[in-house]
Amino acid sequence: MASTNKPVESEYKSSSTPVLHASAPAGVDYFKFDVILRFLLFAASLVSVVVMVTGNQTLNIPLPLSAKFRYSPSFVYFVAAFSVSGLYSIITTIASLSAIKNPTLKTKLLLYYVLWDAVILGIIASAVGTAGGMAYLGLKGNKHVNGWNKICNVFDKFCRHVGGAVGVGLFGSIVTVLLICLSAYSIHSRVPK
Amino acid sequence: MASTNKPVESEYKSSSTPVLHASAPAGVDYFKFDVILRFLLFAASLVSVVVMVTGNQTLNIPLPLSAKFRYSPSFVYFVAAFSVSGLYSIITTIASLSAIKNPTLKTKLLLYYVLWDAVILGIIASAVGTAGGMAYLGLKGNKHVNGWNKICNVFDKFCRHVGGAVGVGLFGSIVTVLLICLSAYSIHSRVPK
Repeated sequence: MASTNKPVESEYKSSSTPVLHASAPAGVDYFKFDVILRFLLFAASLVSVVVMVTGNQTLNIPLPLSAKFRYSPSFVYFVAAFSVSGLYSIITTIASLSAIKNPTLKTKLLLYYVLWDAVILGIIASAVGTAGGMAYLGLKGNKHVNGWNKICNVFDKFCRHVGGAVGVGLFGSIVTVLLICLSAYSIHSRVPK
Repeated sequence: MASTNKPVESEYKSSSTPVLHASAPAGVDYFKFDVILRFLLFAASLVSVVVMVTGNQTLNIPLPLSAKFRYSPSFVYFVAAFSVSGLYSIITTIASLSAIKNPTLKTKLLLYYVLWDAVILGIIASAVGTAGGMAYLGLKGNKHVNGWNKICNVFDKFCRHVGGAVGVGLFGSIVTVLLICLSAYSIHSRVPK
C-alpha cells in the first residue's frame, strides 16, 4: 500500500532490496513473529494436553469398561512431552518479550533458541508419532496380529479426543519447525554479505 | 598447525579470542564435522532400514504364523522415513564436500541445512516414536485392552530386529539434532561481535 504512494523513494534503492533493510542494518528483527509462534506452540501444547487428559470414557457393556490416557504408555509420554513443551514455550516467550526491549542479547539468544527448539522438536515429534501410531491401531486394529482388534468402535469419545490431541500436537510440531527456521534466518540476516 | 608457528600474532588479540579466528574472519569452519555427522546419519538410516526389513519371521505353531514389518503401518512409516533421511544425507554430504572446496556458498547453504534438517528431524523423530510405541506394545502388551497381548514372547527374532532398528533410529535423530546445532553455531560464528 505504502509503496504505491511513494514512487519517488523507490528510485534511491535497487528494485530488489526491501525497504525494511534500510532501517535495520544489524539484521532483520523477527522477534515479534517469534513471540507469536511461541504463543501458538504454548496454545497447541495446552490444548493437546487438555484434550488428551479429558478423553477418559467409561462404558457399561455389560461390565464396566473404561479407557483412560494413563492406561497406555504412549499417551502418558504424549502428555509428558507436551507438558514440557508448554512450559518451555512460556519461558521462551518471556525471554523473547524481554529481548524486544533489550536488543544486545539477541544474537546469542537466537542461537540458544535453535539448539533447544531442536531438542523440543525431537521430543514432541516422537510423542506425536507414538500417540498417532497407537490411535491408528485403535481405529483400524491389526488383522495380522491375533487379538489386536480396533477399539474405536466402542470407545468413540476417547478416540475422538486422542485424534484431536494428535492433530493439535502435529500443528505444534510444525510451529516448532517454523521457529527453528525463523531463528536460523534471523541469525543469517546478521551475517555481513 | 599454522598457529603454533606464529606465537607473536596472538599478542595482538585479546586472550579470550581463539587463535582459529585469526585465520578465519568469515566464521569458524565446521564443514568437516558436518560431513562426519551427515555420514553418521546416512549409516544410521541405512542400518535401521536394513535391520527393520530383515526382521521378517515365520513360525509354525502349529499353523504358519508370520511377522513382517509391512504388516504394521507404523513400521512401514519407519522404513519410509529413514529411506528419505538416508537419501537426504547422501545429497547433503555431497553438498558439504563441494562446499569445502568452494567457500563462497557456505553461509546460504548452512541456512538451508538448518531448515531441511529440522524437517527431516520431525519426520524421523515421529517415525522413531511410532515404531518404538508399537514395539513396546509388542513387548509388554496392554492389559487394559482386551486382546492386545504381547507378541514378543513368540516372535523373538522379529522383536529383536525392531528394537535394534528403533535404537539406531534414535541415534540418527540425535545426530540430526547435533547437525542443526552445528549449522546454527556455524552461522552464528559469522556474525560480527
